Amino acid sequence: MKSTVVTGIAELTTNDPGLGTLHDAAVVLEGDRLAWIGDAAVAPVADEAVDVAGRAVLPGWVDSHTHLVFAGDRTAEFEARMAGEAYSAGGIAVTVEATRKATDTELAGTLARHVSEAIRQGTTYLETKTGYGLSVADEARSARLAARLADEVTFLGAHLVPPGADAESYVDLVCGEMLDAVADHVGWADVFCERGAFDEEQSERVLRAAAERGLGLRVHGNQLGPGPGVRLAVRHGAASVDHCTHLTDDDVEALAGSDTVATLLPACDLSTRQPLAPARRLLDAGATIALASNANPGSSYTTSMAFCVATAVLQMGLSVAEAVRAATEGGARALRRHTGDGAVGVLRVGARADLHVLDAPSATHLAYRPGVPLTWAVWRRGVRVWPRHRLD
Amino acid sequence: MKSTVVTGIAELTTNDPGLGTLHDAAVVLEGDRLAWIGDAAVAPVADEAVDVAGRAVLPGWVDSHTHLVFAGDRTAEFEARMAGEAYSAGGIAVTVEATRKATDTELAGTLARHVSEAIRQGTTYLETKTGYGLSVADEARSARLAARLADEVTFLGAHLVPPGADAESYVDLVCGEMLDAVADHVGWADVFCERGAFDEEQSERVLRAAAERGLGLRVHGNQLGPGPGVRLAVRHGAASVDHCTHLTDDDVEALAGSDTVATLLPACDLSTRQPLAPARRLLDAGATIALASNANPGSSYTTSMAFCVATAVLQMGLSVAEAVRAATEGGARALRRHTGDGAVGVLRVGARADLHVLDAPSATHLAYRPGVPLTWAVWRRGVRVWPRHRLD
Ligand SMILES: [Zn+2]
Ligand SMILES: [Zn+2]
Repeated sequence: MKSTVVTGIAELTTNDPGLGTLHDAAVVLEGDRLAWIGDAAVAPVADEAVDVAGRAVLPGWVDSHTHLVFAGDRTAEFEARMAGEAYSAGGIAVTVEATRKATDTELAGTLARHVSEAIRQGTTYLETKTGYGLSVADEARSARLAARLADEVTFLGAHLVPPGADAESYVDLVCGEMLDAVADHVGWADVFCERGAFDEEQSERVLRAAAERGLGLRVHGNQLGPGPGVRLAVRHGAASVDHCTHLTDDDVEALAGSDTVATLLPACDLSTRQPLAPARRLLDAGATIALASNANPGSSYTTSMAFCVATAVLQMGLSVAEAVRAATEGGARALRRHTGDGAVGVLRVGARADLHVLDAPSATHLAYRPGVPLTWAVWRRGVRVWPRHRLD
Repeated sequence: MKSTVVTGIAELTTNDPGLGTLHDAAVVLEGDRLAWIGDAAVAPVADEAVDVAGRAVLPGWVDSHTHLVFAGDRTAEFEARMAGEAYSAGGIAVTVEATRKATDTELAGTLARHVSEAIRQGTTYLETKTGYGLSVADEARSARLAARLADEVTFLGAHLVPPGADAESYVDLVCGEMLDAVADHVGWADVFCERGAFDEEQSERVLRAAAERGLGLRVHGNQLGPGPGVRLAVRHGAASVDHCTHLTDDDVEALAGSDTVATLLPACDLSTRQPLAPARRLLDAGATIALASNANPGSSYTTSMAFCVATAVLQMGLSVAEAVRAATEGGARALRRHTGDGAVGVLRVGARADLHVLDAPSATHLAYRPGVPLTWAVWRRGVRVWPRHRLD
């Protein structure tokens, strides 16, 4: 197995309580794992040596919430919304129609292009969802294509009642034939529990059916207004409840007393002109949060985790350390991949060798220099995947 | 003179009232000017042809407000502010001390690095200011170095009363010996008219002395609270008043009835946790606005005009067209370079050949995809300055 020692790390964010943040550090990558972390002065020899010359290194972003199996264009809808028209969840149907019509090659090509765009910005572990198929065949196809290109796949047949369908019969389909058709390709199931999508009882049926098949659970909840999503997720032991824009004190308390991660999507909040999710309130109450992009063509068409981190610091009251942790280890917790052999979102011996090198001396620059592209190099599973040319 | 025809332009933002926004367009660059604009189907032949393959093209950003002649590090101050400590204008003194101590080579190197970073993000015309020297010799040096690397230089001796100096005698120095020492290198003078910096009477003295020497005028005003800055700027026919975060109805009315551009600095507003400037209110009243980065190590350490545009659309109520115009032609107006031969911020025959090619089919993606680095290629004065490698 080839090994690489990375030296010259001015600041190393590990997210490991025992290691903390190191300065003048080095790491050794061996195969797809981290084999050593410590003081640069005593770093072991390896097959290859890379000097990052005073730059900051952090775990690659863990983007735990995206919808990247899609086709079609919704630029005009975005423009209309920015011109003051109200956000309509019905916009999803436009993407469903285009996705159904697209060929496998088109869908896979669009997904691959966005995954590659995310990697170039430091994302090394990415979840994506189905949810623009909404028929047994189309959901199965989306799940199969996603499983080829994403690290984690979530089944979101319960994204929207497809045009022309009856809600109750559609939930039956999701809970039966559709789940059977996707189960081989996905590790997670999700439901959009919101006025205009699925109500509490329908959402509960979806979660039960998914849990019976051994899938992990997550919920889209409390995006457009207060609702039962958060408490439903906590009650079912979901790994995450995503959006959390509108929370009552009871919701916050429920999250704080649970293992359910509150996954916040600031780029989505801004792109739909919603308030920003109450990140500070959640952390202060003791809840675990993740930051994710929610990359999708309707409500949040960005793959930039750095934008989410900058927004969280500048506008949501988080410190840089809190925001960076939420976008790395927080995302890993939302995917239950934060511990054990091959853990992500954390840099420790045995973790996956996913490194994000910034063209800056500290992670603080992610918020201090909003919008400036700071990704200098990316290692994923021990392989340098960005940039393509030699480092200088 | 070498000519280049750029074809395959899906959307061409010209900012020219007679041309509007073109689709399936082409442009011809000849020397450092635009020689032709029109329908791709009838584009003339040129020495070189570049196909941008369905991408959007706009004028390069005109960043009309930066402070990039500086040395020293203020990352810790930013971190403290994000941890909830109040913004202190005194932070400028830290940069003054470091700037005075730096060698010419250090200062020029830092400036060149930031200018190059801005160009890689689509900025093709950049103003920068002195204001971290605050002695005759240090301001003269800053002006001289800035004149080498920036398109426009503004004298900001009246940035802050330097530690240990008396305000009235310092204003005398600025208005006399200091202005004499910088006059050969700068086209503009600026004054920070704000509680804690210079009062209305002191600011007025600076503007008068600068106008007597034939310099164009601008004012930093209404950043931290309401104040006389805007009305002072309008009264003196300043080309711009910058910040405009806190405006009364009288201020808005004064701007609307003047040629003074309201230069808004959203990255600064966010980085200092101020409210965002009332862009919508200004446009609705008929004022002219510019968007600029205010790149400086204290209150806004970003060179990303795309971040400013995305923020203006997502959070300040502007349409994409309004925000893009403010960051191009608006900036040019603030520098009085929007008309005539070699105009910037606008694409028409005779304008400077400054093109910003996005890796997207429309300028809307700048706000639709916040944080994603979208700059695909940049031509400045007819020369492709980014990327360094072949286009593919
Ligand atoms: Zn979502
Ligand atoms: Zn300024």
